[in-house]
Amino acid sequence: MPIDPAAEIEVTAYRWVPPMARGRIKDLRVRWALEEIGTSYRVRRVGGVFGEKELRHLADQPFGQVPVYKEAGLTLFESGAILIHIGSKDERLLPTDAHARARAIGWAIAALNSVEPFLGMLFLVSMVGEGRSWQDEAAAGVRPFAEKRLAQVSNALGDKEWLEDRFTIGDLLMIDVLRAGPEQHLLTAHPNLVAYVARGTARPAFQAALAAQLGDFDPEP
Amino acid sequence: MPIDPAAEIEVTAYRWVPPMARGRIKDLRVRWALEEIGTSYRVRRVGGVFGEKELRHLADQPFGQVPVYKEAGLTLFESGAILIHIGSKDERLLPTDAHARARAIGWAIAALNSVEPFLGMLFLVSMVGEGRSWQDEAAAGVRPFAEKRLAQVSNALGDKEWLEDRFTIGDLLMIDVLRAGPEQHLLTAHPNLVAYVARGTARPAFQAALAAQLGDFDPEP
Repeated sequence: MPIDPAAEIEVTAYRWVPPMARGRIKDLRVRWALEEIGTSYRVRRVGGVFGEKELRHLADQPFGQVPVYKEAGLTLFESGAILIHIGSKDERLLPTDAHARARAIGWAIAALNSVEPFLGMLFLVSMVGEGRSWQDEAAAGVRPFAEKRLAQVSNALGDKEWLEDRFTIGDLLMIDVLRAGPEQHLLTAHPNLVAYVARGTARPAFQAALAAQLGDFDPEP
Repeated sequence: MPIDPAAEIEVTAYRWVPPMARGRIKDLRVRWALEEIGTSYRVRRVGGVFGEKELRHLADQPFGQVPVYKEAGLTLFESGAILIHIGSKDERLLPTDAHARARAIGWAIAALNSVEPFLGMLFLVSMVGEGRSWQDEAAAGVRPFAEKRLAQVSNALGDKEWLEDRFTIGDLLMIDVLRAGPEQHLLTAHPNLVAYVARGTARPAFQAALAAQLGDFDPEP
């Protein structure tokens, strides 16, 4: 079990989030990567997804979010950057060949900049429109952008097992983005994406990371 | 002048975009990075930002966008991944020290995943709401998310020249995201961000990249 209070690597997680957000907080990505390579980490818990953040945490993470990753001499934020850093030290997450590595990082950035923002926008427009007369119409306006990106990822994946010829942090991030997105019925329109997410989340490292995140929340705020 | 039809590196750009989009297409980021290190590239032009894409381009770039970056044996998409790849070969863009490199990549990912999506959402909600009774109300709902991220970047930058102790691809991406965002009055609320963008865009490499992008568009579709 990679969680070890004496570990050199520290990962920051929220102390409490609402039940619907549990299993979807981004420290999961870092826990998953560390589980894949069997590297121990300790957890430092900070406030919640809403609410005031401790000053020490804000100094580490300008957006007040988690995860923050620490090892001797390094404080790092942005889950994508943390995965690239961890992957740069272990080829099970990121190939050592410069071109294969660039392609894997390409998919990682695609997940973060070309897919997640459109799923996030659909979620946020629905949220800020909650109870307003225009909620459905505004969501209907942005939904096609999310649908298009999912169709494009489905096309790119085709019948392959992973986005390139092996599992990398590109898959880890893409799978996490897809599984946590709003309106999962948009995903089920693409059976190859459903199977891809199932393949990724069936990995023992994902299951261990998920259990670890769920186990670290306080039951009440 | 790094543009050279015989160069080994190829960067894909649009043949035509509407005037308001000129200077804001993401091949600019790659041109800028290559100008910073004086590396020659040739330009391959494909359709437009709207409209059908050539099949060859779709095979290279699953989202049908630009830029695509090619060098011997590598086809790469996502501007962030291209900059990390170029930076990995030249420390003027990305430090060689593992920790400093990770921090720079952290800011690059912050620009792409923590700032650009919220500016993009504000733009897109205004666009899909164009002419609808709810346009202003929906934009007002998402604008605070964009404002909050800008305030957080402003806090993180403080009175520093660059986000870390020297210019990196993290600054290149953050500056490009900030300068191209909608509602520039949100930026002008933060004088240090305005000065930061001015500092970045005053660099000769940015100016050369901008001129090169503008010069490569056809005047009419």
